[in-house]
Amino acid sequence: MRVRSYVNGGWHEARSGFTEVRSAIDGRVVAEVSSDGIDFAKALAYGRNVGGNALRRMTFHERAEMVKRLALRLADCKDRLYELSYDTGATKKDCFFDIDGGIMTLFSFASKGRRELPNARVAIDGALEPLSKEGTFVGRHIYTPREGIAIHINAYNFPCWGMLEKLAPAIIAGMPILVKPATPSAYVAYALFEEIVRSQIFPEGSVQFVAGSLGDALEHLSGQDVVSFTGSHSTSTALQSTAAVRENAVRFIAEQDSLNAAILAPEAGPGTPEFDLFAKEIVREITAKAGQRCTCIRRAIVPSAYLDEMQSTLVGRLQKVVVGSPRDEHATMGALVSFAQRDDVRARVEELAREARIVYGDPVHVNVAGGDDGHGAFMSPVVLRCDKPLAAKAVHAVEAFGPVTTLMPYEGIAEAIAIANRGEGSLCASVFGYNADSVDEIVRGIAPFHGRVLVVDRDCAKEQTGHGSPLAPLVHGGPGRAGGGEEMGGVRGVFHYMQRTAVQGSPQRLFTVTAQWNPGAAEDPAPRHPFEIPFESLRVGETFRSATREVTLADIERFAEFTGDKFYAHMDEAAAKASPFFKGRVAHGYLLLSFAAGLFVKPELGPVLANYGLDSLRFLKPVYPGDRVRVRLTVKEKTPRKPEYGEVRWSVTLFNQDDDVVAQYDLLTMNATKEHVPSAVIPSEANAVSVVEESVSGV
Amino acid sequence: MRVRSYVNGGWHEARSGFTEVRSAIDGRVVAEVSSDGIDFAKALAYGRNVGGNALRRMTFHERAEMVKRLALRLADCKDRLYELSYDTGATKKDCFFDIDGGIMTLFSFASKGRRELPNARVAIDGALEPLSKEGTFVGRHIYTPREGIAIHINAYNFPCWGMLEKLAPAIIAGMPILVKPATPSAYVAYALFEEIVRSQIFPEGSVQFVAGSLGDALEHLSGQDVVSFTGSHSTSTALQSTAAVRENAVRFIAEQDSLNAAILAPEAGPGTPEFDLFAKEIVREITAKAGQRCTCIRRAIVPSAYLDEMQSTLVGRLQKVVVGSPRDEHATMGALVSFAQRDDVRARVEELAREARIVYGDPVHVNVAGGDDGHGAFMSPVVLRCDKPLAAKAVHAVEAFGPVTTLMPYEGIAEAIAIANRGEGSLCASVFGYNADSVDEIVRGIAPFHGRVLVVDRDCAKEQTGHGSPLAPLVHGGPGRAGGGEEMGGVRGVFHYMQRTAVQGSPQRLFTVTAQWNPGAAEDPAPRHPFEIPFESLRVGETFRSATREVTLADIERFAEFTGDKFYAHMDEAAAKASPFFKGRVAHGYLLLSFAAGLFVKPELGPVLANYGLDSLRFLKPVYPGDRVRVRLTVKEKTPRKPEYGEVRWSVTLFNQDDDVVAQYDLLTMNATKEHVPSAVIPSEANAVSVVEESVSGV
Repeated sequence: MRVRSYVNGGWHEARSGFTEVRSAIDGRVVAEVSSDGIDFAKALAYGRNVGGNALRRMTFHERAEMVKRLALRLADCKDRLYELSYDTGATKKDCFFDIDGGIMTLFSFASKGRRELPNARVAIDGALEPLSKEGTFVGRHIYTPREGIAIHINAYNFPCWGMLEKLAPAIIAGMPILVKPATPSAYVAYALFEEIVRSQIFPEGSVQFVAGSLGDALEHLSGQDVVSFTGSHSTSTALQSTAAVRENAVRFIAEQDSLNAAILAPEAGPGTPEFDLFAKEIVREITAKAGQRCTCIRRAIVPSAYLDEMQSTLVGRLQKVVVGSPRDEHATMGALVSFAQRDDVRARVEELAREARIVYGDPVHVNVAGGDDGHGAFMSPVVLRCDKPLAAKAVHAVEAFGPVTTLMPYEGIAEAIAIANRGEGSLCASVFGYNADSVDEIVRGIAPFHGRVLVVDRDCAKEQTGHGSPLAPLVHGGPGRAGGGEEMGGVRGVFHYMQRTAVQGSPQRLFTVTAQWNPGAAEDPAPRHPFEIPFESLRVGETFRSATREVTLADIERFAEFTGDKFYAHMDEAAAKASPFFKGRVAHGYLLLSFAAGLFVKPELGPVLANYGLDSLRFLKPVYPGDRVRVRLTVKEKTPRKPEYGEVRWSVTLFNQDDDVVAQYDLLTMNATKEHVPSAVIPSEANAVSVVEESVSGV
Repeated sequence: MRVRSYVNGGWHEARSGFTEVRSAIDGRVVAEVSSDGIDFAKALAYGRNVGGNALRRMTFHERAEMVKRLALRLADCKDRLYELSYDTGATKKDCFFDIDGGIMTLFSFASKGRRELPNARVAIDGALEPLSKEGTFVGRHIYTPREGIAIHINAYNFPCWGMLEKLAPAIIAGMPILVKPATPSAYVAYALFEEIVRSQIFPEGSVQFVAGSLGDALEHLSGQDVVSFTGSHSTSTALQSTAAVRENAVRFIAEQDSLNAAILAPEAGPGTPEFDLFAKEIVREITAKAGQRCTCIRRAIVPSAYLDEMQSTLVGRLQKVVVGSPRDEHATMGALVSFAQRDDVRARVEELAREARIVYGDPVHVNVAGGDDGHGAFMSPVVLRCDKPLAAKAVHAVEAFGPVTTLMPYEGIAEAIAIANRGEGSLCASVFGYNADSVDEIVRGIAPFHGRVLVVDRDCAKEQTGHGSPLAPLVHGGPGRAGGGEEMGGVRGVFHYMQRTAVQGSPQRLFTVTAQWNPGAAEDPAPRHPFEIPFESLRVGETFRSATREVTLADIERFAEFTGDKFYAHMDEAAAKASPFFKGRVAHGYLLLSFAAGLFVKPELGPVLANYGLDSLRFLKPVYPGDRVRVRLTVKEKTPRKPEYGEVRWSVTLFNQDDDVVAQYDLLTMNATKEHVPSAVIPSEANAVSVVEESVSGV
C-alpha cells in the first residue's frame, strides 16, 4: 500500500523517498510512505485561507454537528481499521481503545460542543467585569478562532484515537488542521483519513494529511498557528526549537511520554481489594498495547512491607499473559510496533537494569502464539525491582516504551510522594487505597507534578476506566517531563485553538460584540409580550417590563402558612432585627420569585414550553412589608436545541419602589419554534379548561 | 545609592561588577547595581523549599489577605517612591499609573482572591464530570500550587506596577517569587522591595529580589518553576532558548512589546465625538511615560478620507505638549529612561522613516522645561505618516519604544482589519466608533490577533481607562509578536502559577480530595438540624433529610391564585398536554422551591442569618398533582466571610415518591459564627412575636 497525502485540495502521490513499513507480526512490507514533493508553505496557506475561512463562517454548533456526523460515519466502517491495525501489533482489545475509543471521543466532543458552547462564532469566558463607578465602562473575555492552521503530530501507538482526539477540538474551535501520523502506523491513519475525505463532511481545505516527513512545514508557522504534538521528549524539544516556532510564539502543545507512577497506599495490604486491584492494573497497563502508551505505569510504588508479596502476585498474573499475533485467538498481548522499537526498549531495559534487577520476563526471548519473535517484534513483559528508588536516577528518567515497569518500595507517605514526584512531571499517576486521609494526602502531594490522578478503590473498581486511558472530558498532559501541555478536557481543549481577548467598552458595545445581553445595554421593547414570540423571532435584548405589586405583611404570612416556611426573618419582627442583614421582617426570597413569575408570565398556551431552571440568583436587598416590586425580563441569550424548540436564557431583575435591584437571576425556558408552537386546544377541551380556571379563581 | 539584592533570607551587597544608573533628567549617577556573588541555585532552592512550603500551608484567603495588607502598607509610603521615580523621567501622572496603579492592582487581586477562590489549599475548576453509568466513577479538575519558584523579570518602565501585578497572583497561588527589576529603574523597585521586607508580611523565603544580572539562574529551572517576563521580543526569545527552560518545559509567560493599533471606524468622521476621542487618546498614549509602554499605540489607522484632518488635529494637540523635567510644574511629558534608550528610539525612527515620513516632531532636538536635551534623555513626540501601509513592512514590525506613532489610511473595514493584523499579534488595540455594525466587525476581525480590544465611544468616554492601561480583572498579553503569554485576568492569572490536574475516582473520594461535597458522596447525618449549628461547627457533608409532602391540585391552584402565575402548564390540562414536556398539569417550579424551603427550614432564631441566593437550579422531572416530594439538604462548601459569619453553600435535591430527582440546586445562606449567633429576643419583644405568630396561623 502506498500511503498518499491529502493537501492543497487533493490527493498527493509521492514519487520518491519512500520509507518501507513492515508488519509488526511477521515482518512483511505492508506500506510505503513518503511526502516528497509537497509544497508545505502552500498547504499551510491553503488550510488557513480556504479551510479556515469556511470553518470560521460556521457556528460552534454547526462545527460540533460535523464532528458528530464523522463519528456516526466511522462507526460504520470500523472493520477495515481493525484488520489493518493488527499488523501494527495491536490486539483486538488494543484496537478497541484506538478505534472505538476515538469514535467515542468524537461523540463526547460533539456533545460538549453543543451543550457547553453557544450557537455562535464567539464564545464568552467568565462574567462581565465592572470597570467603572457609573457602569458606563465594562469588560469581558471572548474567544475567537485563531486564524492559522493547526498541525497535529501524532504518535504511532494510537493512529485513530490520536488523530480524532486532536481533530475534534480543533474543528469545533474553527481551526483547519494538517494531520501528520507517525510513519510506523501511517497506513492505519491513512485508511481513516480516506474515509474522512470520502465523507465530504468537512469544508474544503479544513482537513489535510501528510504521511511521511513534515519537510520545512514548521519553518512557515506564524503566531496564529498551533502545533499539537504527541511523542517523545527529544523530538518535542527539537521541534520547539524551530526558529519560526520560537520567534513567532507559535502555540505548541506538547504531550510527551513520561515516567508515570502507581502508588499502593499504606493501608492497602494483601487481602484488601485495593491490593488486588493494583496488581491487576499493573498487568493491564504493561500488556495493553504491549506497554506502548505514553501514560503506561512505569513505576509501581509499594509499601516496603508488601513489596515481596506484590512482586509474587504480579509474577503469578503475568505468567498467564499470552504474547501472540493479534490474529491468534489465544493472544492476550500483541507485538511492539517494529523491530527498531523493540531494540530501543531492550536497550532501555539494560539501562534500568543498572539500578534495578529484573524479577520477571526475559527481554530477549519470548514464546509467541501464532508467530515467533524472530519474524515479529514480540517481547515478554518485564518487571524490574529497584530497592533504593530515592538513590536511583534512571528509573525516574529512562522510559522503556514497551511492556516494562519497575517495582519500588517506600516507607511512609512523604516518601511515596517524593518518589512519584521524582518523575519530574508525568501525564498521570494512580493511587490505590481506601483510607481517605492517606489517599487524600498522596493525591494532593503528587497533584502539582501530574496532569491526571486516578484513585482506584473498591467503590469505583467496576466502573473505573483505567490508569492509562485519557478521557475526552478530562485534561490530558502534564508538567515538566510530560511536556507542559494540555489536550482535551472538554471545551478546555477547544479553547486551545482559540484566542482569548479581553474586550472593554460600554455595556451596549459588549452586548453587540458578544451577542449576549447584559444589564446596562439597551432594552429593546418587545412588540408583543415575549411569551407570545416563537423562538426564531425572539430577539436578544427584547425586554418586558411588568406592572408593580405590593408585598404585604399578609402576603408574607399567607406564604409562610401555605409553604410551611416560617423562618424567623419572615415571621418574627424582633428576631429578624437580630440578624445583621435585616431591620425587621422580610419577604421570603421564594415569595419574591413567585410574585415575579406572576408579574411576567403570560398564562395562555404559546411558545414557552417549560421553565427548566435558574442560574446565579442573588437576593441583593431585603423586601419589607409594604415595598412594591416590579420585574424587568430581557432575552439574554438563545440556544437552539432541537428543530422543535430552543433554550432561552432571560435576564430577570426585580426592582423595588426606589428602583433598587432586590434580586437578579437568569431564568431558563424552553421555547417552541414557529412551526411547533403547541396548537390551540380543541373546543371540548377548551371548555374543560375554562371550568378549571373558574375553579381556580374560587380558591 | 547601592541597590542591594535580597536572597537566601537576607540582604546581599555585591562588591564588584556595578553598573551605574544615571538620572534620565540630568545625567547624574543615581544608583549602582550589581548581583555579583549571589549563589542563584541556592536562592532558587531556598525559595522553593522555605518560601514555598510556608506559602502552601496557607489557604487562598490567607494569602490574599497578605496581598491586601501589602497594599495598605504601600499606600502609606508612596511619597518616597514618587520622589525617586522622577529621576527615571516619569512625571507625577506617570508615577500615578506605576505606584498607585500597582497598589490598586494589589487590592483588586486580594479582593478577587477572597471572593472567587475558596478558603482552601486546593481550587476546583469546572463541574463534576460523570464518567460512568452507575455513577461510581467521576472526575473533576483541581488546581494546586506548583512546587517551584516564579522568576519575575520586569521591564524598566513600570518598576512598581510591574513588580506588584506579577507578585499578587503568584503569592495568592502559593508560589514563592524572585523579582528581577530592570536595571535602569532598579533603584525604584529596590525602594519598594525594601518596604516589602520591612513589612514582614510575607513568610520567610517567599519573596526574593535580585538587582542586576540573573547570572545562571535560568539554567537551574525545573518543570515546576515559572518565568514571567515583560520586555523585548529578542530578550524573551533568548531566555526561552535556555536549555533548562526548553528541556524541562518551564512555564514561560512572555509579555512582549508589540505594534499596537488604534482604528478610527469608518463613520467616525470629523465632528463626531469619537474623532476627537481618537486624537486625544493618541496624544495621551505617546506622551504618557514618554511613549515607553508595551501597549502604546504605534499605528493609528484612519479612514483615508479623514487622514489629513486627523493629522492636523493631532499636530494641534501635540503643539500643546510641554516636554520637561518631572520636577518642573509646566511639564506634561517627561524624559526617556536613558540616553541609550533615546539613541535606540532615534535609530528606530530612522528605520520607520524609510517607509513613512515624519509629519510632527524632531527626533533629535526638543525644548525642555526645567532642563535640556543635552543633559537629560528628553525627546519630542514624533508622528509619522505611511500612505501605503499594506505595502510597508517596518511600520508593522519595528517598534520605536518612545513617543512615536505612525498614521496610516485605510479604505473599507476589511482593509482596516488587515492593517491592524499585520502587527502579527499585539497586546491591545482600540476601536473608536459608534456604529454597532462596523465596530463589531472590526472587533471580531482583530480579536484573534489581540489580547485586549478597547472600544471607545461617547457612552464610555468619561469612564474608559485608556488604550494603554492593563487592568487587573482583564488578561494582559497577546499572541505572536506579543509573546503568546497572558498575565492577570483576575483568578486566571492566579492559575498561571498552579497546576491543573484531573482527578478521577469515586464520588466520595472526589469529595474528600476537593473538600467540596458532591452527590454520590456519603451523607453525614447531622446530629442536630443543620440550621442549629454555628458556622464553624457545621461539617461539609452534613445532611438533613426532610419529611414528605404531597403536592395537590389544590396547592397548584392556590399558588397560582396567590402569586398570579397562571401559566397554562399549571392551569390547563389540555394545554399542558400540548407541551412536549408534560403529560398534564404540573406544579410550578417556584411552588416546589417554596415547599422545599418549608420542608427544610427550621424557623427558630439561630445561626442561619439569610438566604442570599441560588445557583444552578434545574427542574429535572415534572411534578404532577398527587406526587409527594421530599428534600435532601447537604452542606456542600463553607467560605468564611467576616468574623461574624460565613457563607454556606448547600446542595439541595428534591425527590418524588419514586426517588427520582425532580430538582437540584445550590442554596446559599449566610451563617453566624458561634460567638455571633443572634441572641434570644428579650421577653417583651418575645411576646410581640408570639402574637404575630398566632396571627399567621390564622391566615
